[in-house]
Amino acid sequence: MALSKKPYKGTRDFFPADKRVQDYLFEVMRRTAKSFGFEPYDGPLLEEVELYKAKSGEELINDQIYDFTDRGKRHVAIRPEMTPTVARMVAQVHRETPKPIRWFSIPNLYRYERPQRGRLREHWQFNVDIFGAPAEKGEREILQLLITLLKNFGATEKEFRVYVNHREIVDDLCSEVFKVQGETAYQLYKVIDQSKKLKPEALSEKIQALKLPAPELFQEYLALENLAELEDFLKKQKLLEKHAAFFQFINDLKELDLDRYISFDPAIVRGLDYYTGLVFEVFDLHPDNRRAICGGGAYANLLQIFNESPLPGVGFGLGDVTLTDFLKTHQLLPNFEKPENDFFLSFQTDKAELSIQKLAQALRDKGYQVITHLESLKLPKAFKLSEQKGAHVVGLLGEDEWKEKKISLKKLASKEQESFSLDEVEKMLNFYHR
Amino acid sequence: MALSKKPYKGTRDFFPADKRVQDYLFEVMRRTAKSFGFEPYDGPLLEEVELYKAKSGEELINDQIYDFTDRGKRHVAIRPEMTPTVARMVAQVHRETPKPIRWFSIPNLYRYERPQRGRLREHWQFNVDIFGAPAEKGEREILQLLITLLKNFGATEKEFRVYVNHREIVDDLCSEVFKVQGETAYQLYKVIDQSKKLKPEALSEKIQALKLPAPELFQEYLALENLAELEDFLKKQKLLEKHAAFFQFINDLKELDLDRYISFDPAIVRGLDYYTGLVFEVFDLHPDNRRAICGGGAYANLLQIFNESPLPGVGFGLGDVTLTDFLKTHQLLPNFEKPENDFFLSFQTDKAELSIQKLAQALRDKGYQVITHLESLKLPKAFKLSEQKGAHVVGLLGEDEWKEKKISLKKLASKEQESFSLDEVEKMLNFYHR
Repeated sequence: MALSKKPYKGTRDFFPADKRVQDYLFEVMRRTAKSFGFEPYDGPLLEEVELYKAKSGEELINDQIYDFTDRGKRHVAIRPEMTPTVARMVAQVHRETPKPIRWFSIPNLYRYERPQRGRLREHWQFNVDIFGAPAEKGEREILQLLITLLKNFGATEKEFRVYVNHREIVDDLCSEVFKVQGETAYQLYKVIDQSKKLKPEALSEKIQALKLPAPELFQEYLALENLAELEDFLKKQKLLEKHAAFFQFINDLKELDLDRYISFDPAIVRGLDYYTGLVFEVFDLHPDNRRAICGGGAYANLLQIFNESPLPGVGFGLGDVTLTDFLKTHQLLPNFEKPENDFFLSFQTDKAELSIQKLAQALRDKGYQVITHLESLKLPKAFKLSEQKGAHVVGLLGEDEWKEKKISLKKLASKEQESFSLDEVEKMLNFYHR
Repeated sequence: MALSKKPYKGTRDFFPADKRVQDYLFEVMRRTAKSFGFEPYDGPLLEEVELYKAKSGEELINDQIYDFTDRGKRHVAIRPEMTPTVARMVAQVHRETPKPIRWFSIPNLYRYERPQRGRLREHWQFNVDIFGAPAEKGEREILQLLITLLKNFGATEKEFRVYVNHREIVDDLCSEVFKVQGETAYQLYKVIDQSKKLKPEALSEKIQALKLPAPELFQEYLALENLAELEDFLKKQKLLEKHAAFFQFINDLKELDLDRYISFDPAIVRGLDYYTGLVFEVFDLHPDNRRAICGGGAYANLLQIFNESPLPGVGFGLGDVTLTDFLKTHQLLPNFEKPENDFFLSFQTDKAELSIQKLAQALRDKGYQVITHLESLKLPKAFKLSEQKGAHVVGLLGEDEWKEKKISLKKLASKEQESFSLDEVEKMLNFYHR
């Protein structure tokens, strides 16, 4: 029986047209991160499972992780996320590295999921983190960078919105207003996290089950629609002053003209994750694709598992699958079906083959992308192939040209044509240059 | 107990200085491949083990592969090499794709090895293949590309050499001159492959064990030192005419001035691999690092396992670990210790913080890399940090500048300094532009 030609379930083959899309996404990510002075890093694909156990939720470890025991009896996993790796790496160097530490990476990650829209078993994720920045300033820069990234992809406030919340505010509301703690607080967090996905009756049921002393206050919290309403709510509960820094942070974003991208959402808490401060999610505003395309937040204790002194951090992860869906939905993805090349050099007489090769080498030495066809080509085929290969110039060398040691170059867009002696590379580059 | 901060055995953490080296290697690889019109592709990290079983040697499957059974009972492996994946992908599209198909990729690969110089468990490999090219022309282009790549890294014929051989020649010698076939031919191949690594006595012993009818002819073959000697040897054995195309191929390389990078080596057969035609390895010529840094060859039957019609291919794989050793040995690796940035903007009075942020955003919008320091900085520290961050220009905004809504910019190299109104972005970019 013949082998299957399909890729492993939930993964993708990147044919050249797909890989050019990915290269474009990665290029914009890198350019944006570098425009803020962020530096690239990467870690190994495999980590010991202990690392994920120490950091992540149990669900991830139990059901979603690709783990196995290696031939040396080490229990390892293919990374399901980058945060444990970056924490491990920062733990190695943070003492001697000037703060803030600004790092980014674009790792591929594996999760054992049922493949569906926006979710695959293998995806790439743009990870950006800043460590050791002054309070609120790292948070601000991360949101700046995230918004700049989406703008660099051509998106505007019409296409996406960043919904924010703050774990310390939610924590305070839990303990001082909703009056819950311990296991009930944990359950309350879960309800907040699920509140948007639940039907009203199911939500009411879950809230009732919590037996809150004042469930109407919790309902009121969940109904808050914007930052002004949150401010009022906190004021009534005498918690506003304690969280003045958060509202100052929002005000700074206004000064930088970024508030039009940002809303408050009481339901954003980022699950049971390790966040301790600001939490945020970017949502696609298109009715056909209303989903989170990115999430992140601030965390204080990521180095604890390595017995290192605390170092505050803020970061986000943006997956290539959800990003691509977002860009496609808004027709923001350029067309990468065809490659782009400078010259497609063909010959119509076999004698010319090595001359074409020599010329190609000379043009490549000048930094140009040159395809040579490796056997004699009739003219219509030469034009068709150069068009398919996205060449700007087609080179033709038939019997007539051969007699004079010449080549004819023709620009595919303007149809302009000229012939050159085979050694007149400079003249050719006056005729066509990038 | 605190968790280990070390990466998994045999893998590397890429801190920014390391990642910049890797990015440089990958950039030169991509640029070189594209200069020949090769197109990028990638495949999944995991493949079903069946694929490797069908294609690879047993040793790889048994001892070196990272395989495990997923939660859906699929037997999968982390890719130990890219060839099976590219074969699987080409098998999907080769019928409707114009030939030749020129593809490249830079995947990370895993092999369970004892870590040592040049060998790690995780490495990246530049994979370049051309499919469906006319006989000898694809081979020539692959060697051209490989040599161009090493030249683009700054290497010359003093630093490396490409050793070539041809499987059809070795096959013919086996059957017609050494008079072996079946299992003995297989053993003979093994001896050829190991001949360089064995001591003379051990080699003699192995040859004796083969019980060749004329062992002195085999010894004579192994002693051949260059293409002229091979030509003589084949002539004596009346096999020269049959392999005229190989010598024509070598002659074409001479015409393209590439013969000075190329030698014949009778010991190169590329193991028991799937090659069927040209085989080659690149060796570092430095006495401290005399090892193969790259290998490749031509293969005819890679699509067979998919029940597809034959499609000839030629390709090579070049690993990042061996390449880095090579470049370091010859001091060809640029220094990437520090990042490179355009502006490092600092303030010496807290009032100026948001003004600095606005200016940074305006400069980033013009395509510049701008670091802002997020808290007030004394001048000596500002200079030190901007130097560490590889900034070309440091921005200073203290009480004096604040009164006039100005910023002082100073070029770190020339010490040239000027002050600008905070909104004079164009003037700043006349003062400094990339």
